[in-house]
Amino acid sequence: MTDVNAPAGQGIVTAALLVIGDEILSGRTKDKNIGYIAGYLTALGIDLKEVRVVSDDEAAIVEALNALRARFDYVFTTGGIGPTHDDITAECVAKAFGVSIDYDPDVVELLRARFAERGTEMNEARMRMARIPKGAALVKNKISAAPGFWIDNVIVMAGVPAIMQAMLDEAAQKLKTGVKMLSETVCANAREGDIGTELGEIAEANPEVTIGSYPYFDENFGPNTNVVIRSRDPARLAEAKAAVEAMLVKVKEGIRR
Amino acid sequence: MTDVNAPAGQGIVTAALLVIGDEILSGRTKDKNIGYIAGYLTALGIDLKEVRVVSDDEAAIVEALNALRARFDYVFTTGGIGPTHDDITAECVAKAFGVSIDYDPDVVELLRARFAERGTEMNEARMRMARIPKGAALVKNKISAAPGFWIDNVIVMAGVPAIMQAMLDEAAQKLKTGVKMLSETVCANAREGDIGTELGEIAEANPEVTIGSYPYFDENFGPNTNVVIRSRDPARLAEAKAAVEAMLVKVKEGIRR
Repeated sequence: MTDVNAPAGQGIVTAALLVIGDEILSGRTKDKNIGYIAGYLTALGIDLKEVRVVSDDEAAIVEALNALRARFDYVFTTGGIGPTHDDITAECVAKAFGVSIDYDPDVVELLRARFAERGTEMNEARMRMARIPKGAALVKNKISAAPGFWIDNVIVMAGVPAIMQAMLDEAAQKLKTGVKMLSETVCANAREGDIGTELGEIAEANPEVTIGSYPYFDENFGPNTNVVIRSRDPARLAEAKAAVEAMLVKVKEGIRR
Repeated sequence: MTDVNAPAGQGIVTAALLVIGDEILSGRTKDKNIGYIAGYLTALGIDLKEVRVVSDDEAAIVEALNALRARFDYVFTTGGIGPTHDDITAECVAKAFGVSIDYDPDVVELLRARFAERGTEMNEARMRMARIPKGAALVKNKISAAPGFWIDNVIVMAGVPAIMQAMLDEAAQKLKTGVKMLSETVCANAREGDIGTELGEIAEANPEVTIGSYPYFDENFGPNTNVVIRSRDPARLAEAKAAVEAMLVKVKEGIRR
């Protein structure tokens, strides 16, 4: 595990994402948060190492939370913090940490003010959104009065993409970040199988660089491949990219012969 | 765990999905398989209970596979079965099951025939796609000559959506299925917080029905809510739906007053 006291920009910072919701697992709702959070954290210099999707089930949520928070520097969660009976994330987080949960006076005030402004009734269901585990800090946002929260290394966010994004912007200001992973994409103009052997040799010769090979169908070229080279070290990245480009020239000469 | 020998249409059949790939966790590629597989399995009568996304890392893949295959009737995997060095899924599956892995003569033949037809070289990289763990059955498909495979309760598929979908169609013919989960959606024409308390009471009074509440923004109505009621029992589903509809009428009368 990374030294959590390392200053920003030092070392590697890891994260996991826990997506909570029956609707994702039934296929009714297509998740829009995984890809967004993955790209966002990568840009910040945080490595997303694992994603789990679980249903609105206490045992499943608590178990996944405890497994992930022990293993990664940060765990982000999405979903299950609304006003209805199936919103059980806050209770589950309290249970996972073994802390109590109660109505947070600051959140009650925030909600009261927002609902008064809108002429909406402040009822029992809406009050659920003020329940915050003991010791958590609020993650406010500009869209919804109901906040997410941050407890130890776990950051709890809404499932609605616009609200989640606003909460992530808020949390991001306080996240410890690592050395950014840099990446270069080289379009091979070759089928994956044409370059696989040679690409494997380059990968082996450059252990501090990660090389991914992603086949796709190009309207003009036909089956094609993007080679993605990733490293935290710009010099090593450039070396490996040059090796890939030189290899592609050689392989294409071979193919043409 | 479900009785794996139960005839189709009896009881509950569960599944997990393991998505394998650095490109999903970096945000470079947006996953298109989770939502598709979730909807597909639900329609078949198989409950998707968990999804995990892990990187192209042997330890992470083996651990996730072993955790999921012990817990669910089926585990589907996507990604990592192509011809390049970062395609390590087949080796990891063999390791998780403690079986050997070797070139499968049937697959070698399939690949040779396809590549001969296309005038493509049958090289070392392409031969990787013929490596199949001992005891696995092939999951052929109409798009790619390289097959997926099925070993014990684990079904290994490609990551490219069109190929994955063809493999899933193939595997589906042999999947044991449970009693289908039925669902009804009621548009509340109310904010989630307006109906949360009453909806919770209905959920509590109908323990064999799952009720989900999904807020969304309706262009005409403003903040709105879909209530999704799910059950395997059509009579219980109808009862709960009627209770939700009656509640909505009552709540709206209250709101109007």
